[in-house]
Amino acid sequence: MKATIEHLKRPEMKDILSVQSAVLKSIHDFMWGSGTVQVMPVMLSPFTDPLAHPVHDSSLEYEGQRLELTKSMILHKQLSLMRDDLKGIYIVSPNIRLELGETGSSGRHLIEFSQVDIELKDASHKDFMGFMERLYSHMEGFVLSSCADSLERLGRELKPAKPPFRLYHRPELEERLGKDWEHEASLRESQPFWVMDHYREFYDREDPKTGGHVNYDLVYPGGFGEALSGAERETDYGVITRKMKERKTDPSPYRAYLEIARKGMLRPTAGGGFGLERIVRYLTGRRSIRDVCMFPRVPGEKVLV
Amino acid sequence: MKATIEHLKRPEMKDILSVQSAVLKSIHDFMWGSGTVQVMPVMLSPFTDPLAHPVHDSSLEYEGQRLELTKSMILHKQLSLMRDDLKGIYIVSPNIRLELGETGSSGRHLIEFSQVDIELKDASHKDFMGFMERLYSHMEGFVLSSCADSLERLGRELKPAKPPFRLYHRPELEERLGKDWEHEASLRESQPFWVMDHYREFYDREDPKTGGHVNYDLVYPGGFGEALSGAERETDYGVITRKMKERKTDPSPYRAYLEIARKGMLRPTAGGGFGLERIVRYLTGRRSIRDVCMFPRVPGEKVLV
Repeated sequence: MKATIEHLKRPEMKDILSVQSAVLKSIHDFMWGSGTVQVMPVMLSPFTDPLAHPVHDSSLEYEGQRLELTKSMILHKQLSLMRDDLKGIYIVSPNIRLELGETGSSGRHLIEFSQVDIELKDASHKDFMGFMERLYSHMEGFVLSSCADSLERLGRELKPAKPPFRLYHRPELEERLGKDWEHEASLRESQPFWVMDHYREFYDREDPKTGGHVNYDLVYPGGFGEALSGAERETDYGVITRKMKERKTDPSPYRAYLEIARKGMLRPTAGGGFGLERIVRYLTGRRSIRDVCMFPRVPGEKVLV
Repeated sequence: MKATIEHLKRPEMKDILSVQSAVLKSIHDFMWGSGTVQVMPVMLSPFTDPLAHPVHDSSLEYEGQRLELTKSMILHKQLSLMRDDLKGIYIVSPNIRLELGETGSSGRHLIEFSQVDIELKDASHKDFMGFMERLYSHMEGFVLSSCADSLERLGRELKPAKPPFRLYHRPELEERLGKDWEHEASLRESQPFWVMDHYREFYDREDPKTGGHVNYDLVYPGGFGEALSGAERETDYGVITRKMKERKTDPSPYRAYLEIARKGMLRPTAGGGFGLERIVRYLTGRRSIRDVCMFPRVPGEKVLV
């Protein structure tokens, strides 16, 4: 209990909250200027992101129906963009991922966090990556100018990002740096960088020519690791169902989503989501994500407040 | 399924989303200018708002601990403002309230919605109500100017609000208009209005002199009903525990919160939360809250997507 109260009252939190508020303000300003609209999160649905790693069950029953708590808004972003009159959307939503306790020591995992989820209609991966570089630069520039005093008190010297960011391909990085390529590359770089081509969930688009994956991560330098992951999306019913099979994803909760895909109503989109607490961790230079949360939800830890 | 797809694609949704985006943009602008900071929601905690009406259970188990899904951020707002260096905070958070199916016909209830939750340090009810009137006017003014075309297409003629809003007391309204006073008064008024003094949860401050409650609702005119509810907060451990007893609120999940109160660490604050979907419903003049949600979660209805 003493530790909990000390955490709530520790001096650096005010400056961290100022940076967080500036991050959010600058994202809302940029997105407003981009002509996208903001959609509200849903937390309960028959289906959610299946994720590419195991977590504890977080479903519940409501009046006879089993509903999953949102792990990410990806499938609902796709459904929103079925509309002809929307060119892009964004959603700031809690993502609940009941991670196994052993991930608690990573310094980067939480059982719930806030994700800024963006999806653009008829966009290629290049379009989306360019959009994100502009958003990132706008955000970082706003934080550097409006929170200079906070960053100084936090002892954080940030080199302004200079897009376009360097682009790597995962197979090449993995061959060169081994299994822990993300961390190794993050330590070596001094600017955020892109890494393309990851084997992931069914909704990331496959390249039928190469068998590769048209998806991307943005990674922070300095060992801070992943910032964003995203992709061009799969829209073809046959490909989606084959990939579900390959990944042993049970299709039954996705019935309505698959019916919409079967009708050919999913539109080509590209998008991604970035973890807000991880942005704040990087911009403020904190080693543990716990330090940027007023109410940290670290895997495996008992929650007191 | 046909109805679900029609709902997702219905023409008026684009204008509704434009209004919603303007509402959010103007709130973020106003709050940024007010010197408050934005705190991220938490969705899981040992305790949450007990609410003043019955709903289905929405707790889950994580690694041996029972956690409640957030019904409102009220108690976490109070805990955030224990800090000496924060003068005010706001949080945009999903609130999950698994309402009984019978409330589905109200046109105003959802099993999850987004709440804009604000709390100000050392503020009286008058301070907070004044703050909200300025925020409301700023928001409505921004919507009227930036979404004039959308409002016209939606057939909504909005009379600009003119604060200060009229102030009523619930006992007087109830005596005059009967049990359904909120709806009756909402139908009669042409401007938003305040109603003070409601018997509610333990955390709303009692007036020790009168035995009344220093809390307030803001109500929309035109039959649109409640916009916001809030209060000055109880900070005294003895009063909090007595009121929990009177309301038959089981204190055991609130152990850590009560320990903080017992140590005298809760600070005098006033605040409130307004339902985002209800703002959008009022500003766009829709009769059912379903119509302003991309993914409506209406009590008692099966969720398809």
